[in-house]
Amino acid sequence: MTISNTRPRRGRPPKTERGFEDTREALLRQGMVVLTEQVFSSTGLDSILKAVGVPKGSFYHYFPSKEAFGLAVLERYDAYFAAKLDYHLLDDRFTPLQRLRHFADDARAGMEKHGFRRGCLAGNLGQEVSVLPESFRERIGAVFTNWQRRVEALLEEARDNGTLTADADCAALAEYFWIGWEGAVMRARLTANDAPLELFVERFIAGLPQTR
Amino acid sequence: MTISNTRPRRGRPPKTERGFEDTREALLRQGMVVLTEQVFSSTGLDSILKAVGVPKGSFYHYFPSKEAFGLAVLERYDAYFAAKLDYHLLDDRFTPLQRLRHFADDARAGMEKHGFRRGCLAGNLGQEVSVLPESFRERIGAVFTNWQRRVEALLEEARDNGTLTADADCAALAEYFWIGWEGAVMRARLTANDAPLELFVERFIAGLPQTR
Repeated sequence: MTISNTRPRRGRPPKTERGFEDTREALLRQGMVVLTEQVFSSTGLDSILKAVGVPKGSFYHYFPSKEAFGLAVLERYDAYFAAKLDYHLLDDRFTPLQRLRHFADDARAGMEKHGFRRGCLAGNLGQEVSVLPESFRERIGAVFTNWQRRVEALLEEARDNGTLTADADCAALAEYFWIGWEGAVMRARLTANDAPLELFVERFIAGLPQTR
Repeated sequence: MTISNTRPRRGRPPKTERGFEDTREALLRQGMVVLTEQVFSSTGLDSILKAVGVPKGSFYHYFPSKEAFGLAVLERYDAYFAAKLDYHLLDDRFTPLQRLRHFADDARAGMEKHGFRRGCLAGNLGQEVSVLPESFRERIGAVFTNWQRRVEALLEEARDNGTLTADADCAALAEYFWIGWEGAVMRARLTANDAPLELFVERFIAGLPQTR
């Protein structure tokens, strides 16, 4: 991939042989790794640049600001996570509530793989919102709305097939799920095991307005 | 209150006219204010000392380390919050589930009073646990256990009076409550309104295994 001349640039050109888009992609991926684990406001860009092999000082070649980088990482994480949700929640070989469990199992395995050090990037940024630029508040909210809509559609399917009662408020239940799920991810980081995730999803399903 | 000679001290003596215990107490109180809002690992002690009027450099007169200060602030917050819980959850003029709502209403008012900038100190520290001294993990877990036991006792009362089914697992439900409640506090900071807290407590109560 060649470096486009149409993009505005600042700073030194990169010394790496990767193209512009490849390097930008590597920075976003490293950003996802770091920001699922660390606090954005106290994360230095240097460590991210170093991990990717991009010389200090050429960051602004790829992103206009740290804020723009953070928002781009969040956008990338949103897309990654929405795809993970779709993979499980749209798998109609299983019942809707089984699919929700499969998503939870996947998330549990993912947290375990990284020793429960990594949490949810949107949840982490949400905790910092009072010290971040105001642009983050709306964007993080939109990410949760995006994920909630997917769970809402799943619960509507469960309502329409008679698993949930006809008066189940699927939008409110989906929001309730994500509010609590973020708490469960937080607690799993604290306990360094998957028990909070398992407890949460089990009790959430048990508390749904089911017809049987 | 006079300064005891039996305590080991380091650093310069304080220039304030307050006694040792009063100053230490003021530092703990300011620590609670700051750590409900900010990230501990990136909080400088200087701003806390300045707010309390304690000269820089005399911090170690009061606490052996930043770690010891953080743990002491957490302990104080635990006691403060347990008292708030008892105030509502032991008020037997109301039914157990009404009391849980009263606690939630109190917490909502508290967050609103501070413009939804302040969250839960234990939850905040829990998010940072991977970068804090290992001593924090156990202590934060113990704080949640302390609060959960109070909700567990409340739910047992509801089970024993026939509101909840006889087979209700009150310990698991109490843990589920706190896992989700921390998520709700987090979301309320993000949305800067009390809707997530209200939604969470309403759905939690609706999802309880009730007899009617």
